[in-house]
Amino acid sequence: MAGNTWGQAFTVTSFGESHGPAIGCVVDGCPPGIAIDEALLQTDLDRRKPGTSRYVTQRREGDEARIVSGVFEGVTTGTPIAVIIENTDQRSRDYSKIKDVFRPNHADYAYLQKYGVRDYRGGGRSSARETAVRVAAGAIARRVLAERFGVRIQGYLAQMGPIRLACEDLDAANTNPFFCAEPARLGELEDYINALRRDGDSIGARIDVVAAGVPPGWGEPVFDRLDADIAKALMSINAVKGVEIGDGFGVVETRGSEHRDEMAPTGFRSNHSGGIQGGISSGQTIRASMALKPTSSIVIPGDTIDTRGQATQMRTTGRHDPCVGLRAAPIAEAMLAIVLLDHALRHRGQNADVDSGLPPIGGEPGG
Amino acid sequence: MAGNTWGQAFTVTSFGESHGPAIGCVVDGCPPGIAIDEALLQTDLDRRKPGTSRYVTQRREGDEARIVSGVFEGVTTGTPIAVIIENTDQRSRDYSKIKDVFRPNHADYAYLQKYGVRDYRGGGRSSARETAVRVAAGAIARRVLAERFGVRIQGYLAQMGPIRLACEDLDAANTNPFFCAEPARLGELEDYINALRRDGDSIGARIDVVAAGVPPGWGEPVFDRLDADIAKALMSINAVKGVEIGDGFGVVETRGSEHRDEMAPTGFRSNHSGGIQGGISSGQTIRASMALKPTSSIVIPGDTIDTRGQATQMRTTGRHDPCVGLRAAPIAEAMLAIVLLDHALRHRGQNADVDSGLPPIGGEPGG
Amino acid sequence: MAGNTWGQAFTVTSFGESHGPAIGCVVDGCPPGIAIDEALLQTDLDRRKPGTSRYVTQRREGDEARIVSGVFEGVTTGTPIAVIIENTDQRSRDYSKIKDVFRPNHADYAYLQKYGVRDYRGGGRSSARETAVRVAAGAIARRVLAERFGVRIQGYLAQMGPIRLACEDLDAANTNPFFCAEPARLGELEDYINALRRDGDSIGARIDVVAAGVPPGWGEPVFDRLDADIAKALMSINAVKGVEIGDGFGVVETRGSEHRDEMAPTGFRSNHSGGIQGGISSGQTIRASMALKPTSSIVIPGDTIDTRGQATQMRTTGRHDPCVGLRAAPIAEAMLAIVLLDHALRHRGQNADVDSGLPPIGGEPGG
Amino acid sequence: MAGNTWGQAFTVTSFGESHGPAIGCVVDGCPPGIAIDEALLQTDLDRRKPGTSRYVTQRREGDEARIVSGVFEGVTTGTPIAVIIENTDQRSRDYSKIKDVFRPNHADYAYLQKYGVRDYRGGGRSSARETAVRVAAGAIARRVLAERFGVRIQGYLAQMGPIRLACEDLDAANTNPFFCAEPARLGELEDYINALRRDGDSIGARIDVVAAGVPPGWGEPVFDRLDADIAKALMSINAVKGVEIGDGFGVVETRGSEHRDEMAPTGFRSNHSGGIQGGISSGQTIRASMALKPTSSIVIPGDTIDTRGQATQMRTTGRHDPCVGLRAAPIAEAMLAIVLLDHALRHRGQNADVDSGLPPIGGEPGG
Repeated sequence: MAGNTWGQAFTVTSFGESHGPAIGCVVDGCPPGIAIDEALLQTDLDRRKPGTSRYVTQRREGDEARIVSGVFEGVTTGTPIAVIIENTDQRSRDYSKIKDVFRPNHADYAYLQKYGVRDYRGGGRSSARETAVRVAAGAIARRVLAERFGVRIQGYLAQMGPIRLACEDLDAANTNPFFCAEPARLGELEDYINALRRDGDSIGARIDVVAAGVPPGWGEPVFDRLDADIAKALMSINAVKGVEIGDGFGVVETRGSEHRDEMAPTGFRSNHSGGIQGGISSGQTIRASMALKPTSSIVIPGDTIDTRGQATQMRTTGRHDPCVGLRAAPIAEAMLAIVLLDHALRHRGQNADVDSGLPPIGGEPGG
Repeated sequence: MAGNTWGQAFTVTSFGESHGPAIGCVVDGCPPGIAIDEALLQTDLDRRKPGTSRYVTQRREGDEARIVSGVFEGVTTGTPIAVIIENTDQRSRDYSKIKDVFRPNHADYAYLQKYGVRDYRGGGRSSARETAVRVAAGAIARRVLAERFGVRIQGYLAQMGPIRLACEDLDAANTNPFFCAEPARLGELEDYINALRRDGDSIGARIDVVAAGVPPGWGEPVFDRLDADIAKALMSINAVKGVEIGDGFGVVETRGSEHRDEMAPTGFRSNHSGGIQGGISSGQTIRASMALKPTSSIVIPGDTIDTRGQATQMRTTGRHDPCVGLRAAPIAEAMLAIVLLDHALRHRGQNADVDSGLPPIGGEPGG
Repeated sequence: MAGNTWGQAFTVTSFGESHGPAIGCVVDGCPPGIAIDEALLQTDLDRRKPGTSRYVTQRREGDEARIVSGVFEGVTTGTPIAVIIENTDQRSRDYSKIKDVFRPNHADYAYLQKYGVRDYRGGGRSSARETAVRVAAGAIARRVLAERFGVRIQGYLAQMGPIRLACEDLDAANTNPFFCAEPARLGELEDYINALRRDGDSIGARIDVVAAGVPPGWGEPVFDRLDADIAKALMSINAVKGVEIGDGFGVVETRGSEHRDEMAPTGFRSNHSGGIQGGISSGQTIRASMALKPTSSIVIPGDTIDTRGQATQMRTTGRHDPCVGLRAAPIAEAMLAIVLLDHALRHRGQNADVDSGLPPIGGEPGG
Repeated sequence: MAGNTWGQAFTVTSFGESHGPAIGCVVDGCPPGIAIDEALLQTDLDRRKPGTSRYVTQRREGDEARIVSGVFEGVTTGTPIAVIIENTDQRSRDYSKIKDVFRPNHADYAYLQKYGVRDYRGGGRSSARETAVRVAAGAIARRVLAERFGVRIQGYLAQMGPIRLACEDLDAANTNPFFCAEPARLGELEDYINALRRDGDSIGARIDVVAAGVPPGWGEPVFDRLDADIAKALMSINAVKGVEIGDGFGVVETRGSEHRDEMAPTGFRSNHSGGIQGGISSGQTIRASMALKPTSSIVIPGDTIDTRGQATQMRTTGRHDPCVGLRAAPIAEAMLAIVLLDHALRHRGQNADVDSGLPPIGGEPGG
């Protein structure tokens, strides 16, 4: 009801505020016998972590994940895996400037209206710091998906402001701080961010994420379609305002004769659908995309009101990303992994003994 | 698990195949004492119904909703409301052509892979006919939202193929078969559809939907954000491939200094966020958008395979819409209503006694 | 939230009032490919049906179950199975006597307090008639359990008032109107009921139910233990006030040295635990028991109040069972089946690829 | 699915193994603005804690609960409250004796069958230690129930082996290590336990728990009845094998003319129903009872098998309670509180604006 748990078969319950003692999650429903340790989680956490390049916020988060249950002698036991990340960067600070003021386009006003009380320190529960636990839980899901189902997931920066990027080398996305899969254009990205920082402004971004190796049959009609759950998962990430599957909004101007993914004995001839048909995976590569808004935490002062309804101004002075999208690829990967594993287990529960009798079909473009 | 139930506080469980005996739903959690009858449901069902204009499929669906429980002496009792719509248009027909063939870009292949068995008559469970029950359930949700919470919801056609439409007159959207809120351009739409029909092709569309009167505080961090649930709800509608909240993908190229919705004692100065901040309603008008793909059911033959993996061709001869988006506005309204009422009741359960102490703020642009 | 849905993997959503147009349910998550038809449901419905012997109420319920979705060409398709039972016995009647009066120990008072409105005709939603849909859904669950998992379920009358009955012949329980597994004592039961009817009074009963063939491993720690879910399922049946697993309340006076079920290479030496240890099935026969209160609908007048708070009296004149427990064995079987199948599918989803490596152990006493 | 989360509106997600790094829980859906701190939790934890008297196990559990989220400046914020209890008593130990042996009537065998892997240290997830987190979560629920709804909950020992105890002084139950509400018989209990310990054996117990001040209207028909959820909650506690509401199994031999709770303008004349009618609270005191089996961890050797299926013997040498029921009253209180608050919030969500129009009725016996 209060919305801090994801999933039905593989569930993630998230907790924690940005500047409270700790954040973390409880992962329930993980199959037993999977090798998991803290180093595995740390690898993904480090990819998301602030302070790793000069293009993202310099806040030093320890982000050290501690597994306190559900793993015994190096493997999962099938019981809940609790992960705790202490908030080490809790410097004593003066919050008097933001305590009674609503930062524009933040959750401050909505939270206070909802709960009547608000942890005003650094965004509290609505802080982007919360996404660290998604990445930790996602690391577990990705490991299970890889080991048991042969699924591989990768996200990358598809657009930052006006700069549209191709997916030329998916592996390269993990080798630069922009998660850029078109390495030749890294200089262009650096220049843009540097100019933005000089302006004291911020910019939006588009992240694409793909999953290869998903077998046909995952996803549930009618409401819990695989694409619907992916849409929810990505839209639940801080700052996301739009989600696409396959060709996304491009379909509006496309004709049916172009869009339909024709089939041949050697496989699908195209993948406009993004690997999902009727809400169920088709066996093709799953392709999703999300749009992240520019952060409102910028040094250019903005008009706002305080808790008494009086006009005032807000100017962010702390550590913030000029483009929050730059750190979002690992979060998109994590959420996609959590959705996919949840559906894999749900599908297996109901349909484990199904034999479709269909012959395997061939590869597919863009797979 | 099998995904045919929506919601936590206000739930809708959907059932039925396109050409089985009946479709319907069970609505659970509806507050008691609300005046509901079959005429209310029929009004919305008729708006969605095929055969109502020459621009949509001519299949004659009875779409007569029968309420068989949960309503007594004209008002809801708080117990489950079951709605049944008999499938009257079940003419005996020859299905031999589609029985063993996968229609391109339909759910046929994915369903057979998932379940090993498939109701091949007219799409079965994956048919757009299933959306009728969403509309019926949505009519109940809309009534509760209007009576108890003062919320009004309206959808309209924002784009069809290359034709982008303004929202000049929201009320007008209910007076033409295109759900077009820019009535001066109806002729343009008619010409486009007629040409499309001559080509035997189909086209995509974009539907916008707004909800006015939503108070601040609805929506749950972190996963069950209001925008995340709206994204799932809209993406769960047949043929939808993209969802946006507020400015949507437009944020990618927007700077933070433009995008942030500044506040004044008289209210928000803009609504780029689409009425949702941090996953929680802000009190502004909620704005969402969805992209529907062109139907693959067209008369132009397409390549496909049969259940033995052999190459064949598919050519749709039956009744089909050249633009399925034209009937989608009532479905978007229904899903938005279901999401909002679910969150209204969830919020009330946890926070009924909250007093934020905030002074009311003024109106907002675009509301 | 409103509590009319059972289960997570195999779900049953129930609807309907005693004297409304229809009752029914939606069964979601049923594995595909199972042979199901209306005759299967009818067999179990007829076992529960009133009017089948002179020892139970003479109300003639049609109880004809109609399957309107989810079954195609004789087998389940994996999509929701909706079952509708029309209320044919809706004779026009004078409800003025009960409309504004709370029948003692019925749900009348609590419902009106909860909802502010109440369907007063024959108990409405709280009527025992609602259990018919449980039996219909249970028939589906039993079929799946038998076909796919080799599980057999049987309930029987263990006690009626002071008469305690042995389980001498489980099969015999299906051949007499008392569901009595000690046939030699049928005359005793008949005499007791006849005397009770002359007194215009009613009596309680205890029903035992067993499930044989359940493999080890079903059930989830910590909250959703198999025994916990069985307890909830049985306690959710009208008139039930107590539930036991295995030795039940007998454990209070038992020593650990007697109670523990010792093991040998040939299997367990006893089954005090009722086939469940640590909330998980042990592979032994599952044994549960439930106590049903005497119905309060008796001809002996009772004191009560009306909706204005004024003192009045209530005397039931209609058709009622002197011992509602006599019809409860099929309901207990149905609920146990629904619980077991739900857990079977949940277990399979998470643990389908587990190999415990344990050698099979032998049979067990009392199985 | 994996069953470690309780509730829908007020949820508790439990994690942790007996001898892993920590146990704990995430409480989601707690209303905001409630004063909560670690001392509150500690009070209840200390009541459950082992080692507090010579009649219970001498294991020294730190049981120090740390709240790491959801509480800010002393009050709940409406976001998830995570509670962590480090396992300080993790002495290095030789587990070789139990590693490959199934303790009779423990969860060892069932867990290994289910998961294929097992944390064998002290019972792991199936240890009674897990109930500490229930008590911590229950302390939060009790505080909300008391502050916002005026509900008070108390459990006590109703029977230990052959000794049946009256409820003469409910307050006294908190002042002795037996949770005995008939203080005059404390000596009898002490003698019995001492004799039991000399025999190296264990015994069962019955715990009663009552909730006063629950208003009418909590609980949901049909499946999620208040009594059904209480039954599940109590049966989910380690060692519980039977649950009763109100008169429980006593109803089997009771006539309807005795059992029905007649009403008068001054209130109910009796409370055989235990405060719940039709699954919904009636406004009377809620009365429930549970039976706990004797622990199987006794020094008298018992026959069992090892993981290769070979016969062996088991003899518990460590610290164990001769009557686990002696520490169960706080756990029963906690689970009852969690169930009640969950239903309170669910009821409020759906029915917050209901006015039944009924005049208040008077007190009740045994309230």
